[in-house]
Amino acid sequence: MEQRISLVTLGVTDLPRARRFYERLGWRGQEVEETVFFQAGGLALVLWGRDKLAADAGVPDTGPGAMTLAQNVRSRTEVDQTLALAAEAGARITRPAAETFYGGYAGCFTDPDGHVWEIAHNPGFPLAADGTLTVPDFGAGS
Amino acid sequence: MEQRISLVTLGVTDLPRARRFYERLGWRGQEVEETVFFQAGGLALVLWGRDKLAADAGVPDTGPGAMTLAQNVRSRTEVDQTLALAAEAGARITRPAAETFYGGYAGCFTDPDGHVWEIAHNPGFPLAADGTLTVPDFGAGS
Repeated sequence: MEQRISLVTLGVTDLPRARRFYERLGWRGQEVEETVFFQAGGLALVLWGRDKLAADAGVPDTGPGAMTLAQNVRSRTEVDQTLALAAEAGARITRPAAETFYGGYAGCFTDPDGHVWEIAHNPGFPLAADGTLTVPDFGAGS
Repeated sequence: MEQRISLVTLGVTDLPRARRFYERLGWRGQEVEETVFFQAGGLALVLWGRDKLAADAGVPDTGPGAMTLAQNVRSRTEVDQTLALAAEAGARITRPAAETFYGGYAGCFTDPDGHVWEIAHNPGFPLAADGTLTVPDFGAGS
């Protein structure tokens, strides 16, 4: 598994309020399907409903402050390999790898302290050779 | 506030177990004062005691999966300015800016959904012009 993070997702209870907060800090993002993506250096900071975040990962909602990590990889095979490696290392697979609604392929595990990692192949999010991720232009104008 | 993350810190209950897990995934880090730092692209993934993580941020322990974000900035003035901006935007300042034990200067806030951000000036962690952070060589040999 490469030593990098592609997305940090913050679970929120009021998406417009959360987005406004980060915009008042000077951040600029794009909203797509009730999800806000901010380019943050070589990764994305994402705002998403806290209930959806937990359900999607196959874990209970951990309450205020909930956040999850994701690593995007270069192929579906690499998703399978990384989840298998994590399971061997003692991770709990909380969502087996499967096709995603956005046309990708992903699964989730938790580390021994319950931190969620999604391992995803998402052809829509360009990955550079060094692993940095670029949030695509969704063309939504916001 | 720049649009970037310098550190993602995972709260753990058994540091050697957590470190072993990430090492079995192929990650290599350095341990200093019961803290493990992994270079992860342009930021650091950090393992730290969950009790210390909460106490340090001035928030209650949120249980399994707890993690916090940090942004390192270029001066003490920028720490003060960023915390003031966050407070104006509706953040709760959970730890006012103050000198830190490692010779830096930092404070913490929570966003409207309780996510912790530490804003820190840490002369020991080099920041590149583009904001990427490099974990220094602590010379601990591990």
